[in-house]
Amino acid sequence: MNRSGGETLPARNTSVNAARLTERTTGSREFRRCGLGADVAKLYFEDFAAGQVAEYGDMLVTAEDIKDFASQFDPQPMHLDEEAAKATIVGGLCASGWHTCAMMMRIIADGFLLNSSSMGSPGIDEIRWLAPVRPGDRLRVRSSIIETSEPRSRPDFGFVKTKFEVLNDAGTVVMHAITNLMLGRRTPRAANSVIA
Amino acid sequence: MNRSGGETLPARNTSVNAARLTERTTGSREFRRCGLGADVAKLYFEDFAAGQVAEYGDMLVTAEDIKDFASQFDPQPMHLDEEAAKATIVGGLCASGWHTCAMMMRIIADGFLLNSSSMGSPGIDEIRWLAPVRPGDRLRVRSSIIETSEPRSRPDFGFVKTKFEVLNDAGTVVMHAITNLMLGRRTPRAANSVIA
Repeated sequence: MNRSGGETLPARNTSVNAARLTERTTGSREFRRCGLGADVAKLYFEDFAAGQVAEYGDMLVTAEDIKDFASQFDPQPMHLDEEAAKATIVGGLCASGWHTCAMMMRIIADGFLLNSSSMGSPGIDEIRWLAPVRPGDRLRVRSSIIETSEPRSRPDFGFVKTKFEVLNDAGTVVMHAITNLMLGRRTPRAANSVIA
Repeated sequence: MNRSGGETLPARNTSVNAARLTERTTGSREFRRCGLGADVAKLYFEDFAAGQVAEYGDMLVTAEDIKDFASQFDPQPMHLDEEAAKATIVGGLCASGWHTCAMMMRIIADGFLLNSSSMGSPGIDEIRWLAPVRPGDRLRVRSSIIETSEPRSRPDFGFVKTKFEVLNDAGTVVMHAITNLMLGRRTPRAANSVIA
């Protein structure tokens, strides 16, 4: 599912993703492992390259989801209560920015990360919250790979610097985040290979 | 509650914070408004200045919390299951980095943000996940104000650039985040005042 032009990530796992995300949006809060069987080739560092673009999702955001997250983690009026939210700068109930981050994580986890050699991430270089996420929005994530790099000292993994954009169903980019993913190599780099 | 030396933020609301956070750590997931009555002076942009340091918290992290967040938002093995986590790079169950962000948000919300003229934030300049957050950790947040600035075009608020460090009870910084908070002014800036 690539609506963005440019080179694409391997699309072989998108039908699996669609199944998982449908499950997510039908209300189950329980994570159920499903579908990532032997028929879906696992992604390694070598499968990623600068310029690849892919899209993952969608995820429905409900008012209940927004309030539930906010009551645990970000109990500001604009995330908790429709009436109180009207008096705030955002003019109505909207998701906590951290909730949007968490939803992005779930979309990319289901989209490709759970089917990869991901070893996590040392952090995020930039997050921008660009537009409010409202009840009823359906979110998807566009990933654009900026660059890949291989640490000199570690032959077993590489970094994949990626810009993730979270879009709503109107096509508005509501958030972006730039991060370095750590992905294990399919084949360890030879000791004598040259790294730029 | 300032353990860090340096100038401090007004400490008048820390007893309220302690009460709220105790409530949070005794297991209630429900947000209950408490204590921010007329006796607690609200914080505005003018109350913040570069060099101020404050600490907020603490928040207990349980294995149940870690798995609950992960099952919704970040279902990777190191966040979901003790046994599976042993085989990962982090060597045992640990919180999703996004969960740590969300807990940081709750600590600073209770610490001062809910008692301020906060108007949100346009984003985050940097997040670094530096050490795993484990079951049983008690987290606190150290805030250090880097600089304040006033947008030329808006006399009603200012930006407070802040570094938030999340520490565990051993004093290890497990994460930091640098962000620009938007805070309303107590008194709108005069139209003829000079901004550097």
